[in-house]
Amino acid sequence: MKKSEIIVNALEYIREFRGKVFVVKLGGEVMLDERIIASVAQDLIFLHIVGIKPVVVHGGGGEISHTMDKLGKAPVFVEGLRKTDKETMDIVEMVLTGKVNTQIVSQINKHNGHAVGLSGKSGRLFEARKTNQKVDIGFVGEITKVNPHILETQLQNGYIPVVSPVGLAKSGESLNINADTAASKLAQAMNASKLIILTNVRGVLDKDSRLIKRLTLAEAVKTAKSKTVKGGMKPKIKACIEAINGGVNRTHIVKANTHAVLEEILTKKGTGTLITKNKIKD
Amino acid sequence: MKKSEIIVNALEYIREFRGKVFVVKLGGEVMLDERIIASVAQDLIFLHIVGIKPVVVHGGGGEISHTMDKLGKAPVFVEGLRKTDKETMDIVEMVLTGKVNTQIVSQINKHNGHAVGLSGKSGRLFEARKTNQKVDIGFVGEITKVNPHILETQLQNGYIPVVSPVGLAKSGESLNINADTAASKLAQAMNASKLIILTNVRGVLDKDSRLIKRLTLAEAVKTAKSKTVKGGMKPKIKACIEAINGGVNRTHIVKANTHAVLEEILTKKGTGTLITKNKIKD
Amino acid sequence: MKKSEIIVNALEYIREFRGKVFVVKLGGEVMLDERIIASVAQDLIFLHIVGIKPVVVHGGGGEISHTMDKLGKAPVFVEGLRKTDKETMDIVEMVLTGKVNTQIVSQINKHNGHAVGLSGKSGRLFEARKTNQKVDIGFVGEITKVNPHILETQLQNGYIPVVSPVGLAKSGESLNINADTAASKLAQAMNASKLIILTNVRGVLDKDSRLIKRLTLAEAVKTAKSKTVKGGMKPKIKACIEAINGGVNRTHIVKANTHAVLEEILTKKGTGTLITKNKIKD
Amino acid sequence: MKKSEIIVNALEYIREFRGKVFVVKLGGEVMLDERIIASVAQDLIFLHIVGIKPVVVHGGGGEISHTMDKLGKAPVFVEGLRKTDKETMDIVEMVLTGKVNTQIVSQINKHNGHAVGLSGKSGRLFEARKTNQKVDIGFVGEITKVNPHILETQLQNGYIPVVSPVGLAKSGESLNINADTAASKLAQAMNASKLIILTNVRGVLDKDSRLIKRLTLAEAVKTAKSKTVKGGMKPKIKACIEAINGGVNRTHIVKANTHAVLEEILTKKGTGTLITKNKIKD
Amino acid sequence: MKKSEIIVNALEYIREFRGKVFVVKLGGEVMLDERIIASVAQDLIFLHIVGIKPVVVHGGGGEISHTMDKLGKAPVFVEGLRKTDKETMDIVEMVLTGKVNTQIVSQINKHNGHAVGLSGKSGRLFEARKTNQKVDIGFVGEITKVNPHILETQLQNGYIPVVSPVGLAKSGESLNINADTAASKLAQAMNASKLIILTNVRGVLDKDSRLIKRLTLAEAVKTAKSKTVKGGMKPKIKACIEAINGGVNRTHIVKANTHAVLEEILTKKGTGTLITKNKIKD
Amino acid sequence: MKKSEIIVNALEYIREFRGKVFVVKLGGEVMLDERIIASVAQDLIFLHIVGIKPVVVHGGGGEISHTMDKLGKAPVFVEGLRKTDKETMDIVEMVLTGKVNTQIVSQINKHNGHAVGLSGKSGRLFEARKTNQKVDIGFVGEITKVNPHILETQLQNGYIPVVSPVGLAKSGESLNINADTAASKLAQAMNASKLIILTNVRGVLDKDSRLIKRLTLAEAVKTAKSKTVKGGMKPKIKACIEAINGGVNRTHIVKANTHAVLEEILTKKGTGTLITKNKIKD
Repeated sequence: MKKSEIIVNALEYIREFRGKVFVVKLGGEVMLDERIIASVAQDLIFLHIVGIKPVVVHGGGGEISHTMDKLGKAPVFVEGLRKTDKETMDIVEMVLTGKVNTQIVSQINKHNGHAVGLSGKSGRLFEARKTNQKVDIGFVGEITKVNPHILETQLQNGYIPVVSPVGLAKSGESLNINADTAASKLAQAMNASKLIILTNVRGVLDKDSRLIKRLTLAEAVKTAKSKTVKGGMKPKIKACIEAINGGVNRTHIVKANTHAVLEEILTKKGTGTLITKNKIKD
Repeated sequence: MKKSEIIVNALEYIREFRGKVFVVKLGGEVMLDERIIASVAQDLIFLHIVGIKPVVVHGGGGEISHTMDKLGKAPVFVEGLRKTDKETMDIVEMVLTGKVNTQIVSQINKHNGHAVGLSGKSGRLFEARKTNQKVDIGFVGEITKVNPHILETQLQNGYIPVVSPVGLAKSGESLNINADTAASKLAQAMNASKLIILTNVRGVLDKDSRLIKRLTLAEAVKTAKSKTVKGGMKPKIKACIEAINGGVNRTHIVKANTHAVLEEILTKKGTGTLITKNKIKD
Repeated sequence: MKKSEIIVNALEYIREFRGKVFVVKLGGEVMLDERIIASVAQDLIFLHIVGIKPVVVHGGGGEISHTMDKLGKAPVFVEGLRKTDKETMDIVEMVLTGKVNTQIVSQINKHNGHAVGLSGKSGRLFEARKTNQKVDIGFVGEITKVNPHILETQLQNGYIPVVSPVGLAKSGESLNINADTAASKLAQAMNASKLIILTNVRGVLDKDSRLIKRLTLAEAVKTAKSKTVKGGMKPKIKACIEAINGGVNRTHIVKANTHAVLEEILTKKGTGTLITKNKIKD
Repeated sequence: MKKSEIIVNALEYIREFRGKVFVVKLGGEVMLDERIIASVAQDLIFLHIVGIKPVVVHGGGGEISHTMDKLGKAPVFVEGLRKTDKETMDIVEMVLTGKVNTQIVSQINKHNGHAVGLSGKSGRLFEARKTNQKVDIGFVGEITKVNPHILETQLQNGYIPVVSPVGLAKSGESLNINADTAASKLAQAMNASKLIILTNVRGVLDKDSRLIKRLTLAEAVKTAKSKTVKGGMKPKIKACIEAINGGVNRTHIVKANTHAVLEEILTKKGTGTLITKNKIKD
Repeated sequence: MKKSEIIVNALEYIREFRGKVFVVKLGGEVMLDERIIASVAQDLIFLHIVGIKPVVVHGGGGEISHTMDKLGKAPVFVEGLRKTDKETMDIVEMVLTGKVNTQIVSQINKHNGHAVGLSGKSGRLFEARKTNQKVDIGFVGEITKVNPHILETQLQNGYIPVVSPVGLAKSGESLNINADTAASKLAQAMNASKLIILTNVRGVLDKDSRLIKRLTLAEAVKTAKSKTVKGGMKPKIKACIEAINGGVNRTHIVKANTHAVLEEILTKKGTGTLITKNKIKD
Repeated sequence: MKKSEIIVNALEYIREFRGKVFVVKLGGEVMLDERIIASVAQDLIFLHIVGIKPVVVHGGGGEISHTMDKLGKAPVFVEGLRKTDKETMDIVEMVLTGKVNTQIVSQINKHNGHAVGLSGKSGRLFEARKTNQKVDIGFVGEITKVNPHILETQLQNGYIPVVSPVGLAKSGESLNINADTAASKLAQAMNASKLIILTNVRGVLDKDSRLIKRLTLAEAVKTAKSKTVKGGMKPKIKACIEAINGGVNRTHIVKANTHAVLEEILTKKGTGTLITKNKIKD
């Protein structure tokens, strides 16, 4: 195929999504490979130019633990949640908003995109409260309200927003929010038509480690409870389930290869797992 | 290269031209091949979606002669200009605005584009007067003023305008306008950044029939006078010269192959002849 | 009465209709008389200037048959519908969009109006499908969807749209649409407050050939079935009935005398037949 | 001529003035005849509906003197200017803004127009200072700055502004402004294309009491100094001269008959005196 | 407290009311003291600058009687309503629109505010009809419809509207409207969040002449009927009741001391009587 | 004075600055005292509500050194500039954008303001290059271009931008920018009418440690070179000089007491040093 034919073939997919919001979640595990961030950056710029509105939410768990290490502070986890005392929260915020976020912004802007990084506290984007905690794990929170107005003004003015998952408590304190959940909540609040979770595995795998290409909501609920699914994948599936229940059309869990976002959109089959409310025809 | 890479590579070209007007002239000789019109239609839709503003001007000489034939009226040419009595002018207008124009509109809209066909009389787009004629050749005109407002409202509202080269005389009569000239005038009036003339030869050829890839304005002026250039090519070169003098940045004469417009834009070298004011670096 | 008094008296009628859409259907039979087209053109410009939004839909049956004749092709009618093979459809489109339409545009623009001619294919205005045909009559269609957006952008920008009744099939092919029906559908889709059908008879006549000044919807339904009504009038009455059912307030069938449109609007009685849902008081 | 023809003939005049501002000065002497105010009201509404922007400035000298009389206060004039002590200024303002102005508003709104009356103090429309006075004549002022923004917002929102000639001093005090001058200043500040002064004589008369139909600026300057021109006419001519020097195209002094404004606009000859910079062709 | 602290403390009150409409009724009895008008003017300007939208409605009964006196016309009252023959109505209008209104405008504009005075006839603000009268009391009216559009355009454009309570009858005649009622109707039509009635007593007093700080709707209804409440206060309470029933949140009856409006807003307790639908917590 | 009087007196200052941009530089040395940040937050919100457009730029040198310490990395300074290797730059960015910036955002939003924190890389706000370095000090940069568009969209949409002084190199790398300079450049690019530098001393002091209340540009230039001025104050004075040369009207160096910003604006004398182009009258 000639270049121009490939491009023209992309048209029918693009047209379907013009004017729609895509929330792309970039897992912390993805960001170790600079080539991948660069390719994600290009994908986002492309979406933006053809009239799709991308919003990025990122994680950064590994980087947080790494910095804590350097500061001589051992990470502690309680049932999968990071115990977050005041000092840890300062580190969480520094790493997420001051390092991971600004790196993504740099990548996009280096490729002549117009990214704007912001914390979930900015513009009161994520209003939050402490999670109900049996054991005190400190500044770990859940979103009580999403105020997406600040993101909408940026999208309207030609910017790509990049959001770090930090919430604002009524007290003014910062709260550590799970990035998958934050992305899901944001997708719901912005009536996104897609939630794309980029990670370092191929998607949801079955017990024989084969990729599951399609899941309906019902199947996903079942899968999320199954033992064959590994730890890190469960909150991703749950984020997708919540998003679908909140009105998001299509949710994807995809390996963050080069141009994975475009491949997912511009090809019928995609490369990862697609979770939708009902069975869809290819 | 993966599809997505090709698409991403197209970005840097696209970005350069976002928000700019391209005037694409479709020669009558091009429109015999339906596959080509279809591919031009796709190219135009793509331009439109990535934020470039395409305007089409078309010719239709062959089709006019063909219809005159059927009506038992022999075409007469005086120094390359069609002798156009009242009856002929009616045929010219029927064929251009009622047949060629509507076919292009159909092709674009069939591919889910939003084309709007219009005569140069609509919205007083081409105000015209009869050309100074030593020999009376009737309703042959030249443009005295371009009023592009109607096209701008269409572009702003998401439509692709397709224009037939008919002018409006003060008397309300229709005048037959040369399509190359009409395209050039329009490109100037709309501050187009490109004029692309699609035809059925590879571009401007030298005396050994080799394609000339680049011409500066000075070279083009010389070439337009040279004997090695064939009849039909001369008005095309002149239209480009006039466009450049009127502020258009780049003018192209290109063979209307499949996706020729995209190939011309998305590749550094292009496929036809590029005429610019000064020598450019590749 | 002084000129100024007449003008001032016109105010109360004008005010009632400011900002409203009027669909004016110009029958092909009307367009033989250039004086009448000129006067219609003036009326439309006046409406436009006082803030009423006129949209013109025209026919052109006679001119089509005439051109077919010249091309040595005999018109064939099946139950009042023109048998339209591919070659005939080309002629239909050339004559409607390339001749009749552009003539009306010329007349309006010659009087310094700002008309824009367009085919029903432009901007996907009339999406259509072939009519259900017992006998194959070819490219004869019915409208499945009206997309009036292109007309609205023109009205907002100060243009008078003039529409030829050609529909766009999904295949991209052109379909021949009855002009009365097209006008009626358009009036409904644009929430027009008036549909004015200009023709060459005084209006609906009773069995003694006297003009019927007023018809309610119920009476019109009855009249449309009656034998006293001549062939050409029936589809006009049906178009009015459909328009009223689709929410159009007042529908008129009027002889296209000089300034018939203004006379119909600016005087209480009007000159033709007024069909409304319920009985109205003068 | 049929009604519709008259109306259509009015078109060419209307079109020339669409979107333009007309300042109409209504002399106090005019307002004794209610029929005339009613007809002026209709004229203004008509202008408004066809897209011309009328602004009214009115006088009211007679009514002021009349009310002073009733209050047992004798009017005193010094060189044509009313001696205006504080008590008199209160009466001036009550009569102009509270009586004459509101009567004009009533007339226009009674005919379903949308007039808004306002004092020159509102929105700081007329900033003013006391005139240089050899003899102290109190609160008589001259305009130092016109702030037409408030009128522009009204015109844009579909209202007809009616202005009383009262100025606002820096001290917050009200100042009595000559209405002809106020109208002229306003016409200049708003780039009006016409200033129309309605009065109770036919226009400027020559020494044999014949109407002078046309005056150039140079002739007007001469005429303003001549002895044959009566007292009340001189400030009117001067207001016109100043307006022309300030960029107003055409200035008229006309008798306020029924529909005088429309007659002046809709006929080539007009009924009063037209003063323009240079000689004009009919 | 430092100045800046006081100002910063005002923030929380201001924020609550940003973008809301306040209707402030200035009683005629208030306007004798120029210092008070000046302070009200400053308060209004302040509201305006912090984003609250103030609209002023004023009375002027005393001034009307005073002017009638001077003109040798004795005021007559029938059940609290001024008998208003044609001559009296002229005086009412002159005084209200030409004197009281323009004085308030002067005060605000002298303090660099941007007030615009207008009669309730302007822009058809108060459409009215004569009140049902057992005894003929002439041009006394009640509002049948409020058209607040003219005020909204002024507020949007940065002006403070000042309204005199004159209504427009269908006949075009002016009608004398009770100012408290006019303010209440206006507050309802504009979805005001506050109606503040400024008067010359401290608020609603109980039988021992002590200020009642709070009234619920039910209590207010009862109080309005009680004998302990003096004549002038009853229509004020009724205006508040009507306003609350029409959706206004808080209604105040307050003594017009210096900066009474600001004190009422910027302090929790306020200085007068606050009437609300239900009991409120301080 | 009553509260309301104080507030009303503030009006004349507020009015002068409505719609103007103020750039407020918050020194890192200021942010140790949480009470002060809280009071600055309130001041900014107040400015915002009365229509002034505040933009915050902050430093954070102390906090950076403190964090480096914790990470076992000794800060090195070369001629007052921090030697910034890659690892240090990461810390700089984490602390500035991830800690100091988000703390200011929290404070403003806790007081119900709508702050948005962003790095100078976001929206390409600060394009930068490495400073010319005799000795290699690494990622220390100077601004080559300010793109304030992202800030303007935030101000227009009701947000208070808070900017960390990090620049974006063409390579995509982050550069450490001096905060005083960044604030000055931003003030120039946004046509700010004030640059207010908040610090921990009273302003510019003379050799006897007395506050200098006023400096002209010429005096400031001299003072910046004098030996009596301490190290940290010099770049502040230079930032002011540059700002004035770049068109900023008034520049202030002020001790960050409670409500220092408001005190500086709302009082004639202010509390710190005011530097202006020419001598000003009090």
